[in-house]
Amino acid sequence: METGHIASAFDRDLEGIQAQIMKMGGMVETAMADAARALEMRDTELAQQVRRNDKLIDALEEQVASDVARVIAMRAPTAGDLRTVLSVLKISGNLERMGDYAKNLGKRTSVLSEMPAINGTGGAIRRMSQSVNLMLKDALDAYIQRDVALAEDVRQRDSEIDQMYNALFREFLTHMMEDPRNITACMHLHFIAKNIERMGDHVTSICEQVIYLVTGELPDEDREKEDKTPYATGAE
Amino acid sequence: METGHIASAFDRDLEGIQAQIMKMGGMVETAMADAARALEMRDTELAQQVRRNDKLIDALEEQVASDVARVIAMRAPTAGDLRTVLSVLKISGNLERMGDYAKNLGKRTSVLSEMPAINGTGGAIRRMSQSVNLMLKDALDAYIQRDVALAEDVRQRDSEIDQMYNALFREFLTHMMEDPRNITACMHLHFIAKNIERMGDHVTSICEQVIYLVTGELPDEDREKEDKTPYATGAE
Repeated sequence: METGHIASAFDRDLEGIQAQIMKMGGMVETAMADAARALEMRDTELAQQVRRNDKLIDALEEQVASDVARVIAMRAPTAGDLRTVLSVLKISGNLERMGDYAKNLGKRTSVLSEMPAINGTGGAIRRMSQSVNLMLKDALDAYIQRDVALAEDVRQRDSEIDQMYNALFREFLTHMMEDPRNITACMHLHFIAKNIERMGDHVTSICEQVIYLVTGELPDEDREKEDKTPYATGAE
Repeated sequence: METGHIASAFDRDLEGIQAQIMKMGGMVETAMADAARALEMRDTELAQQVRRNDKLIDALEEQVASDVARVIAMRAPTAGDLRTVLSVLKISGNLERMGDYAKNLGKRTSVLSEMPAINGTGGAIRRMSQSVNLMLKDALDAYIQRDVALAEDVRQRDSEIDQMYNALFREFLTHMMEDPRNITACMHLHFIAKNIERMGDHVTSICEQVIYLVTGELPDEDREKEDKTPYATGAE
């Protein structure tokens, strides 16, 4: 077997595991969109479907982990190739967590559909979810194209998600103060909003992997961002 | 350089990165204990300290990731050795998340200290946190000793944490219904309880790594457990 052959088989391996990331990303995008629509439309059947489909995302993560181990064992990658392989592992972990959050949204939709609706919040949550979904799409594009500028752009957009979450938090408080019968529903909606905000954090983490892959360094401010959220208002 | 020499240098590498996991685990145990005590005692200074110390946990995770990449690149591990190396990466991720939750608990303590106290909940949260802390200690022991029975035992104990969380959830609901002035504080306390429950999930994930390392297979029921929590009561 000559070297060119080995290198090209390795390239195919790298492409293969990265293609799995894109597939997994597409499944998470669908799960998020379906979960948000199910919540807004009180569609418990669609919510159930999101919960069932999460098993496929989990299975794909395990497949990725096993393929990554195989690639490392067979090809013994170093330097940039090793970084690529390890980024696949990290990003598949982020996507799996996002899938879990979508599943949890589906669960809470089943519970919420039996409670009085809280006016206006379904639409606000859907918009927030759509923004994160678009961030995810762009983050995956940035990953596959190794586009640092796009990755940076997506990271910046995460602060809009934080603002949307803070606005919703205040809205839930108001509804709960106004009428105690809203409390249980608002606690679930609050969790949903928080989980979508956390999905945004996972997208940010994917962007950091892109930056790391290209520049070899993690962005400096990543750990600081969280501290800037207005927890003094009680929102974080 | 003869083979024996290489193997023993590799063993030292493996021991080194596993020792980092134990160190990181110890830091997370301290963070959890301090965060729970700060909450119960309304000790904002201690809460601040927990938040500052999280940077050290984050730095250690990055160090572990970089050391793991170095070990893979230099030693090209396969089979069981590769599983060990990858488990280090996974577990350091779990510990880093647990550190984040402790930090978040510290943040919320600063906010809560300016609100009316909710009777009885500080102690209940401390007990829940202590149980998870003990689970973490046992999970790390199980990891270092490759003790599948202990890992299984810790996994089973996670359902007690879920029960504690569910009881607290109902208690918070009651306090909020009784007096709207409790709502904001209860929402923070609810997040704290939920985050401790999530810490338990991360400990469970560490146990699954132990089982995977020894048996080569992930336990079957891991993804199912979550579905058994009584979300129909609105508690999950």
